[in-house]
Amino acid sequence: MKSKKIILITGVAGMLGSELLEKMINLNKTIIGIDNFKLGKKIYIRKYRKNKNFYFFKIDLSKPITNFKLDRILKKYELDKIWLLAANSDIQKGISNPNEDLKNTFMTTYNSLNYLQRFLRKKTKLIFASSSAIFGSIKHRISEKTPARYPESNYGSMKLASESYIASYSKNNYLKSYIFRFPNVVGKNLTHGILYDFKKKFLSKKKAVQVLGDGSQKKPYSFSSEILNCMQYISNLNFKTYINYFNLGPKDKGIYVKNIVKIFKKKFKSKKIKYQNSKIGWKGDIATYSYDTSKVSKLGFNFEYNSKQSIIKSFKIMFE
Amino acid sequence: MKSKKIILITGVAGMLGSELLEKMINLNKTIIGIDNFKLGKKIYIRKYRKNKNFYFFKIDLSKPITNFKLDRILKKYELDKIWLLAANSDIQKGISNPNEDLKNTFMTTYNSLNYLQRFLRKKTKLIFASSSAIFGSIKHRISEKTPARYPESNYGSMKLASESYIASYSKNNYLKSYIFRFPNVVGKNLTHGILYDFKKKFLSKKKAVQVLGDGSQKKPYSFSSEILNCMQYISNLNFKTYINYFNLGPKDKGIYVKNIVKIFKKKFKSKKIKYQNSKIGWKGDIATYSYDTSKVSKLGFNFEYNSKQSIIKSFKIMFE
Repeated sequence: MKSKKIILITGVAGMLGSELLEKMINLNKTIIGIDNFKLGKKIYIRKYRKNKNFYFFKIDLSKPITNFKLDRILKKYELDKIWLLAANSDIQKGISNPNEDLKNTFMTTYNSLNYLQRFLRKKTKLIFASSSAIFGSIKHRISEKTPARYPESNYGSMKLASESYIASYSKNNYLKSYIFRFPNVVGKNLTHGILYDFKKKFLSKKKAVQVLGDGSQKKPYSFSSEILNCMQYISNLNFKTYINYFNLGPKDKGIYVKNIVKIFKKKFKSKKIKYQNSKIGWKGDIATYSYDTSKVSKLGFNFEYNSKQSIIKSFKIMFE
Repeated sequence: MKSKKIILITGVAGMLGSELLEKMINLNKTIIGIDNFKLGKKIYIRKYRKNKNFYFFKIDLSKPITNFKLDRILKKYELDKIWLLAANSDIQKGISNPNEDLKNTFMTTYNSLNYLQRFLRKKTKLIFASSSAIFGSIKHRISEKTPARYPESNYGSMKLASESYIASYSKNNYLKSYIFRFPNVVGKNLTHGILYDFKKKFLSKKKAVQVLGDGSQKKPYSFSSEILNCMQYISNLNFKTYINYFNLGPKDKGIYVKNIVKIFKKKFKSKKIKYQNSKIGWKGDIATYSYDTSKVSKLGFNFEYNSKQSIIKSFKIMFE
């Protein structure tokens, strides 16, 4: 008897995890979701908690995993895809306390992989959410050939450390891995980031909104559902190499923070805006970067929304 | 009153650490040495234990460091150079148990850096022993521009993870770092590696010597004292960038394992040699690689011994 396929998602209550869960459940897939609700939100997955195709586990992946119920389920099914989306996405927090990113960005990856080792099948694929933060400040457009050598945040260095471990792990376990380096991502179920921060500040009773940095930061943004569509599309392709890297994002070079502020100002006219006197918003922030995304384009996936459109889509969802 | 400079060496009882200690003590420098004697050997540092310029601490760096006596000494002096040489150098062991390299290759680096953060001075320099293992199987000559993306051993991936953390740490602490990617290193105080392994096997009572792999592996070797000379030379230069990478090694493309066997056979004529039927000696072994070391040459340091000469020098010390 052929066993049924199962998909595992770590960080399932996060921005991307919860949206991925929704997509997969609608496709009638069987899912294991893991989250510790540190950044992920219960409300984002609440309506699926009783779905017969969804097994949820509240596990803190920063510690070695022992869970007999999870073992039993993984033995029963054929592990098809592993989506490692769990991470500390609060970059600022990780600068003041590096243990934050050691535990919640790196060890979550390390422990997940070591736990899952005995459940790997011949065709299991690993999908990993990496980040532009691994590159640091690079003036030219970043392609997949650009070496990642100068991460500036602990988040970036722990994502890079995760990529490193995935490389040796994939090679030694004959596992095909897909490493996706995200641009800034916005979307439906925000848990962090500029729009999340601005929403709080513009809705607060304070007259002035304090922007982090001088507004001159310029970064590419993508809409979460496009990021997920791209990851699904690419991870359904087959490659000969064990480790495959992809830069994801819009074709443009980004949008200025001050232009994101303008979008909010239109709605919240009475708010005063205060900028800081600094090119970067926080220690470890990368003020400007942009991606060369031609690898993904050549493979047949094109991002439709540019940075501004992605921001506006997400903004509308926030206030609709 | 200007405080006196001090040098800190982790892995001080290892092959390079103990030789570095000897050099530094002879130059009348003040040294803090740390080791847990897991791979390092007491005998290699015994004669310096009572030297007034040497403070030794037996500390397991895989765990967070708290040591008041060490705090006191570090406060009293000006931390000049940090030599992070502690690592699990037993690559094979790390493949069967990834925790070995997580703890003894990566966490040793991570904990050392976090502990030392409050003792950093404006001119403190960090020197890190990295490895060709971060690159994996690369056919062409590896330069500093070659991206390190495909480590095959957990040792390699945890060295790469350490480099990643050093990058963000250096940037955030305004620390100048020197990352040296070693070739295979042989020398006086061996603790591991092919010569260490062969010595045991050729001196054993067994008639046959089992060689790991089919003998066709070809790797560059350098003599430990040249590696140390180069690290000292380069780390005395000043660079504008926080993180600086260097490939160290001989100018040649390496020596075949079967040619190292021949050197032993000359002395141990009666031994039979058994090769394995595999291109690599163990899972995670890189059969062939070579370095482009022109960056270091251009900076003014030239390796004098080629791979064969380095092996022979080390062989002679072993049996003299």
